[in-house]
Amino acid sequence: MIKHALNVTREADFAAWYQAVISEADLAEESGVRGCMVIRPWGYGIWERIQRLLDDRIKATGHENCYFPLFIPLSYFEKEAEHVDGFAKEMAVVTHHRLKQVDGKLVVDPEAKLEEPLVVRPTSETVIGAAFSRWVQSWRDLPVLINQWANVVRWEMRTRMFLRTSEFLWQEGHTAHASVDEAREETMKMLEVYRSFAEDCLAMPVVAGEKPENERFPGAVSTYSIEAMMQDGKALQAGTSHFLGTTFSSAQNIKFQNAEGVQELAQTTSWGVSTRMIGGVIMVHGDDDGLRVPPRVAPWQIVIVPMLRDTDEDAAVLAYCKGLQADLAKQSALGEPVRALLDARPAKAAAKRWGWVKKGAPVVIEVGGRDVAGGNVSVIRRDRLYREDGKLDSAVLAKDGFVGSAAALLEEIQSVLHGQARERLDANIVRGVDSFDSLKAHFQGSGKYPGWVEVQWARPSGEALDKVVERLKALKLTFRNVPLGAAPVDGACIFSGEPAVERILVARAY
Amino acid sequence: MIKHALNVTREADFAAWYQAVISEADLAEESGVRGCMVIRPWGYGIWERIQRLLDDRIKATGHENCYFPLFIPLSYFEKEAEHVDGFAKEMAVVTHHRLKQVDGKLVVDPEAKLEEPLVVRPTSETVIGAAFSRWVQSWRDLPVLINQWANVVRWEMRTRMFLRTSEFLWQEGHTAHASVDEAREETMKMLEVYRSFAEDCLAMPVVAGEKPENERFPGAVSTYSIEAMMQDGKALQAGTSHFLGTTFSSAQNIKFQNAEGVQELAQTTSWGVSTRMIGGVIMVHGDDDGLRVPPRVAPWQIVIVPMLRDTDEDAAVLAYCKGLQADLAKQSALGEPVRALLDARPAKAAAKRWGWVKKGAPVVIEVGGRDVAGGNVSVIRRDRLYREDGKLDSAVLAKDGFVGSAAALLEEIQSVLHGQARERLDANIVRGVDSFDSLKAHFQGSGKYPGWVEVQWARPSGEALDKVVERLKALKLTFRNVPLGAAPVDGACIFSGEPAVERILVARAY
Repeated sequence: MIKHALNVTREADFAAWYQAVISEADLAEESGVRGCMVIRPWGYGIWERIQRLLDDRIKATGHENCYFPLFIPLSYFEKEAEHVDGFAKEMAVVTHHRLKQVDGKLVVDPEAKLEEPLVVRPTSETVIGAAFSRWVQSWRDLPVLINQWANVVRWEMRTRMFLRTSEFLWQEGHTAHASVDEAREETMKMLEVYRSFAEDCLAMPVVAGEKPENERFPGAVSTYSIEAMMQDGKALQAGTSHFLGTTFSSAQNIKFQNAEGVQELAQTTSWGVSTRMIGGVIMVHGDDDGLRVPPRVAPWQIVIVPMLRDTDEDAAVLAYCKGLQADLAKQSALGEPVRALLDARPAKAAAKRWGWVKKGAPVVIEVGGRDVAGGNVSVIRRDRLYREDGKLDSAVLAKDGFVGSAAALLEEIQSVLHGQARERLDANIVRGVDSFDSLKAHFQGSGKYPGWVEVQWARPSGEALDKVVERLKALKLTFRNVPLGAAPVDGACIFSGEPAVERILVARAY
Repeated sequence: MIKHALNVTREADFAAWYQAVISEADLAEESGVRGCMVIRPWGYGIWERIQRLLDDRIKATGHENCYFPLFIPLSYFEKEAEHVDGFAKEMAVVTHHRLKQVDGKLVVDPEAKLEEPLVVRPTSETVIGAAFSRWVQSWRDLPVLINQWANVVRWEMRTRMFLRTSEFLWQEGHTAHASVDEAREETMKMLEVYRSFAEDCLAMPVVAGEKPENERFPGAVSTYSIEAMMQDGKALQAGTSHFLGTTFSSAQNIKFQNAEGVQELAQTTSWGVSTRMIGGVIMVHGDDDGLRVPPRVAPWQIVIVPMLRDTDEDAAVLAYCKGLQADLAKQSALGEPVRALLDARPAKAAAKRWGWVKKGAPVVIEVGGRDVAGGNVSVIRRDRLYREDGKLDSAVLAKDGFVGSAAALLEEIQSVLHGQARERLDANIVRGVDSFDSLKAHFQGSGKYPGWVEVQWARPSGEALDKVVERLKALKLTFRNVPLGAAPVDGACIFSGEPAVERILVARAY
């Protein structure tokens, strides 16, 4: 029986386990400010890796970064009714611009009321649309392809760290095009950027597909998502890409003169991923010993822990470790120099080892006097922590051999994590459920982790769709997406009995 | 007589010239949101370069990045009276969390009033101090060395793009230490990081020194700055580093048990630079043809403009340009791969050339059919745009020779820009002004660009200092800083006649 590093397991209480990983891996903490978290260095380091790798891909597809205002005048929201309906219920509103002391207490100065309230951006379509209307005059100005990395605020009543916080960090891409075809192509291109980024960098397999009408972004003509499967079988929407048609270009007057001299409205898109992805990494890769970070997004890929004993031997151990760190930094893995840290803090080696295991550093190296004497290193792989007999699997390897194989080891760990998650996703999408009763039976009978079910449906709209959504809601189920490349339909809609037109995923979700 | 690219010169109207550069170089624009600007791709690209290079230096000195909440509860400010006095007059305050529709109009929902107003951070000492108080228990937890890249808001009445905007982007470092000596050492270390970053990366010579009491950060024991000289002779504070003593640790209860088991307050520091630095780059390096970006912070260092003529020749010209771009990307300059852009947009070559000149790309290469035939490139250096006869200096060079020397060329341009700015700074600090009357005469008699004056003073405090500050203010002058490493004093204070204790810079300032 293995004694794991966390005091709660995924099996015992998945939600408590999630919070334990965040706390024990020093990823984030409650800030004392309602709904807002503090992202600590290890958590922020993962975000910085995500930013760097995704930003490269966003730029490689021709987009440039900009920065737009945090505040959006209230009147901007009035221009697009559907959009404000979707967001107006949960926004932070700045109404004053000064505090003052009254009888020794600090209060909002009533004299300093703004003429027009300012909304803290929940998303930036409106304010970026206003900029596009200045930038776009002619077909020659199109396409406009921009992105911003920013904080946004949506007033959430129930928050959960990384998954749903009032303030969160994200990137939001916004583009304007001369034609529907080109804007739709852009929407799909960015969906594919997200899909391949999730798979390649986060080792997180996802299903890319189109959201049903009821799950569309407010104002979108079509919304696409990537959906990842957590270890409790729930779905996490990990990124979205929207074709907005002329919703925002008509509200914000983004017009251009086409090659024939005729005025047209531009076709726009938007797409985003957020710090929510870190929640996905936790729930896809974590285990009962804490987080496991895929090497490509690990702030440190290899952590060297010297076993110091306050003896004369320590200097030699430290020098050996420094040499090892320098040798590793010369290696290249997954297209970048290896990121190796020497953890020489004045703490017990065992505490440091377990600290890094809980943080999920892909490889932890321990070096003691005996390793130095033998020219060795003791290597712990985070993806294979225990031997079959339940003991910690710490392999003693020749130092030079280890250095030479370090890049391959990191690539292997990246691949192992992806493989495990891919196997889980593939094994837990259930097909062939051909009636609503069977669907109900599946979710009521499959224990805690029923996975996802792919059903056939007739794609109802409006009130008919609302009724189906209500039936699912009663089972705590939601539609996820209509997978791209799903098999052709061959039966009836499980909700209406009408001929099915496509397949859609049903799941519990975060 | 050269016909310059901008329609206003520095000499004619420096303030209008500054706005013209921002507009013509596509750096930023008014957003329509009061006091907030849109940072456009070329401006944001410079900020990304600043972030990348400075972040490397912040990390190399042992700091880690975190992220703290945008919102700070009003009560956090009450804990530190001096701090709130310095900031309370200019903060955005969130008081409500919902909008609603009333008679078709969107209004703030009075039902959704927050129990405690939230201030949009003007700086994060209070909220980060609260985190430090959770993190620090023992001397073993110290030092805490963290940094964040974030947006902050200070409600400004008069704004000027990059120099003073209501919202701006910055980094703010925050550290906690066990001793005064260590915290003071940290304060000076980060001042030196800023000084060397400004000189090495921005090619912007600065004077590092201590701010007088009246210019200290609210709550600081000592504030240090780097000050850069703009081409109009005014000073720009381009970065600050503060030793905060126990001001925030006592307000936020950041306590630790020392090695002897006694509870002590931690000593804290903070330090920051912002998008204001881009304003400095404009006013230090710009000329009457637009911006000149130092190669280290140029998003694109070499821009290749193919001279396309809608003929069969175009394909060969484009292929030649692509080869050139690939060859350049293999070169390394200033420690990084050369950043070369091929600008194949469908616009006139001359318009593109002048566009890149105004943006300040360090090198612009033009390639036409004749260049391809001869194996040549036409090279324009942004630091030496015109020949002595006033004609554009476009040198025809053998392509392979140019590629081989491109790295050296970029390094030379970086050095030329720094040298010109250094010469200007050194030539315009006036010493030997030994009375207030002489000071007055200097600034009243030196035309538009009187530079800075270094005077000797007795370092008055409190009301005595206030009086001196008022006398300067009447002349539109301010104290900048007491330069580190200034010559020893050898005379009387020019304000009081008392024996001087140090030298301080006096200047007009942004």
